[in-house]
Amino acid sequence: MTVSVAGVGMTRFGKFPGRKLPDLAAEAAAAALADADITISDVQAVYAANAVGGLLAGQEMIRGEVAMRAAGIGGVPIFNVENACASSSSAFHLAWQAVAAGAVDCALAVGAEHMSADKGAAFAAIGTGVDVEARDEIARELGAEPGVAKQSLFMHIYASMVRRHMDAYGTTQHQLAAVAAKNSRHGAANPLAQYRDARSVEDVLASREVVWPLTLLMCSPIGDGAAAAVLRRALPGDVKVAASAVRTAAVPDTPAEPAARRAATAAFEQAGLGPTDVDVVEVHDATSPAEILALEELGFFAPGEAAPAAERGDTTLGGVLPVNPSGGLCSRGHPIGATGLAQICELTWQLRNQAGRRQVQSAKVALAHNGGGHMGNDYAVQVVTILTV
Amino acid sequence: MTVSVAGVGMTRFGKFPGRKLPDLAAEAAAAALADADITISDVQAVYAANAVGGLLAGQEMIRGEVAMRAAGIGGVPIFNVENACASSSSAFHLAWQAVAAGAVDCALAVGAEHMSADKGAAFAAIGTGVDVEARDEIARELGAEPGVAKQSLFMHIYASMVRRHMDAYGTTQHQLAAVAAKNSRHGAANPLAQYRDARSVEDVLASREVVWPLTLLMCSPIGDGAAAAVLRRALPGDVKVAASAVRTAAVPDTPAEPAARRAATAAFEQAGLGPTDVDVVEVHDATSPAEILALEELGFFAPGEAAPAAERGDTTLGGVLPVNPSGGLCSRGHPIGATGLAQICELTWQLRNQAGRRQVQSAKVALAHNGGGHMGNDYAVQVVTILTV
Repeated sequence: MTVSVAGVGMTRFGKFPGRKLPDLAAEAAAAALADADITISDVQAVYAANAVGGLLAGQEMIRGEVAMRAAGIGGVPIFNVENACASSSSAFHLAWQAVAAGAVDCALAVGAEHMSADKGAAFAAIGTGVDVEARDEIARELGAEPGVAKQSLFMHIYASMVRRHMDAYGTTQHQLAAVAAKNSRHGAANPLAQYRDARSVEDVLASREVVWPLTLLMCSPIGDGAAAAVLRRALPGDVKVAASAVRTAAVPDTPAEPAARRAATAAFEQAGLGPTDVDVVEVHDATSPAEILALEELGFFAPGEAAPAAERGDTTLGGVLPVNPSGGLCSRGHPIGATGLAQICELTWQLRNQAGRRQVQSAKVALAHNGGGHMGNDYAVQVVTILTV
Repeated sequence: MTVSVAGVGMTRFGKFPGRKLPDLAAEAAAAALADADITISDVQAVYAANAVGGLLAGQEMIRGEVAMRAAGIGGVPIFNVENACASSSSAFHLAWQAVAAGAVDCALAVGAEHMSADKGAAFAAIGTGVDVEARDEIARELGAEPGVAKQSLFMHIYASMVRRHMDAYGTTQHQLAAVAAKNSRHGAANPLAQYRDARSVEDVLASREVVWPLTLLMCSPIGDGAAAAVLRRALPGDVKVAASAVRTAAVPDTPAEPAARRAATAAFEQAGLGPTDVDVVEVHDATSPAEILALEELGFFAPGEAAPAAERGDTTLGGVLPVNPSGGLCSRGHPIGATGLAQICELTWQLRNQAGRRQVQSAKVALAHNGGGHMGNDYAVQVVTILTV
C-alpha cells in the first residue's frame, strides 16, 4: 500500500533551556496534525523518538507516553524508538511500515530532544552513541585524550574520517568550509533554523578549531527542538513515501559497503529510482565534512568529487543538486532525536512548493539521509528515505 | 499473512553481577536462532528491547546495535524499542508487524536487562517509569515519603491499587499470598527461574512487609536476563501469533476502560477467540496482586473473583486456568526489558508440549499480558499477545 506524508510540523530549533521535552514534542505533533487537517482521534499509533532524554532529563521507559499526554494523545499504541541521531528517521520508518501493512490507517511519528540545559551533560550523553565499553579504546585510536574524547568524541571521529578523505582525494579544509558556508546561507532563509546568519568561507575558517580540520562553524550545535509527521494511506496530491531503508554497521571482518551506501541502494531499488532522479537532498551533516562523505556514499558523486562540487556551488540552492536547503544540522540545528523528522518536514515542504526563499524549483523527488552512532569503522545505523510528489 | 514464533530462547534469570547486557542478549539471541534452526544470515531485522540500560550501564542510543554485535548480528535494520516493563512485548509486536507486512521474512525480537550491579540505582531507574516531573506529586498522593517513594515507587503504586480492590471486593492478604505461593511452586519447576524454592502461604505472609499489604515474597525481584524470539511467515506446525495488541493509558478526563482490558478486547477480536478459549496464561505479576487485577481486567474473571479463585487453586498448574506456569515475575524473575519475551518463550514451550514438569496438558491457546510504567490511574502501556498451535 502506498503511504503518504499527510502532514508535517516542527518547532523552531534553538536553545530553549526553559522548555521541556514533552512541551516541544506536543508542539510539533499539534503542528503536524493541523497540517494534515486531522484531529487527535484520527491518530491510531505513535512512534516516538528520543535519544538522550533518559540521561539528560531522567525520563526513561515511557518518554513517548509522557510527551504524547502533553499533546492530548493517549490510549493508542505508543512505541519509544531510539537509534542515536537516526532515532526519528527510524520512528518514521516504523510508522511507514505500520501504515503500509494496513495495521493502522494513520500513524504519527514524532521526534524530540532537549539538550541545552546542561551542555557538559549533553556532550557526555552524545558520547553514549558508541559501544561505551570500548569508548576509551576508541579515544586512544583517535589519538585523543580519554577525558577530552568523552566530551567531544564524535568530533574526533568525524575529524578522523575526513582526514582519511583528505589523504585519499586531496579534499581541502577550504572545501569543507564551503559546505558550512553554503548551509549557513540556506539556514538564513529558514525561519525555523537555530542559526540564521549567513557566514562566508573565511568566517568558517576563522572560527575556533575544534579538532583539525574541523572548526566550530563546521560542527552541528547543541540544541532543542521537535519535529513530527503524520503518515496515512496515500490520497491523491499527497507527498508519497517512495522508500525507507535502515541499515546498520556490518559485523567485523564482514566485507560490506558502508551502511549509508547499502541503505541508499535498498531505498533506490524500493523506489525504482536512482541518484540522478533526485531533485533535492537533506543529508546528515553532523559536521560539514559528513555532508561530503554522505553524498559520495549515497551515490550522488564519485569518491573525491563531492568536495570540489560544493566549492563550485553545485550543491547550493540553484545549483545542480541542492543539498541541505534547510541549513542542515550545522545551521538548522541538531536536537538529535528530532533531526530525521526535521529532514522529512523540509523535504515535504520542498515537494509541496512551500519552502519560501529556500524553495528548490520543480522538486519532484527528494531524499533524506540520517545517520546515528558509531560502531567499528562506520555509523552504527543509517536511514535513507525517498519522498515523491 | 500469518506469522509464527519459529524459535525462542532465554538465559536463566537471576543475579549475575559479573555479566553485561550485550552478553545476556547475545546468549538469548543465539538460543532463539538455534531453536528456529536458522543462522544469523537469515535474520532480516532486529527489534531490541531494553528499559534502563541507559541509566544503569550508561549505554544509550545504540543499545541494540552493541548487543547484537556481541551476537554476530549486524548490517540489517536494528531498532531500539523501549516501553518500560513492556519493552520486549512491544518489540515482539513490531517484529510481528514487520513480518505480517511482508517487509521481512524473518525478524528477531530480543529483550535484555542487567540490574543487579547496583540495587539502589536499579530501584531509582525503575522509578523513571512514571512522568518524572510528577513523581513527587504521585508519591504524596500515595501517602509515601518522596525519598522512600523514589526507591520503591511502584511497590507503593501496586499497594494502593490492591487496597482499593480489597475495599471493593473483600480481597484478603491471604489470597494475595496464595498467588505468590502458587507462582513459587511453578517457579520451582522452571530450571530458568531466578527463584526455585516452593514457598507456602505462611512463608509469604511471614516475609518482610514492603508496603502493606505487600510482603517481600509478593514482589518481583531485581534481576538480570535476556529472552528472544524468531518470527517468520508461519510454516505448518509452527506456534502462530494469533494476535498482538498494544494500548496505552487514556488521556485524563477521557472515559475509557483500563488499558489491559482494551488491549485484551482488541487481541481477542484479532484472534477470533475469547477468554474461555485460552488454556494457559502468563500475566504481569510485578507484584502478586497485579496478577489478580490483570486476570479480571483481561476478562478471565469477573471483578472480585480472581482472588478467591487463586485461593481455591483454579489458577495453579492442573487447575481450571493455569496462570504463570513459568513462576511469573515474582519467581521466574523480572529483568524488566526481558520479561515480555520471557512470557513468549514460556508460552511457546507450553504450546509445543516442551514445558517439562510445569506442562499444561493439551494447551492449544495461550495468552501473554505484559504491562509497563504508570500514568494517571493506569499502567502507561499494556500489551496482550495470543499464541495458538
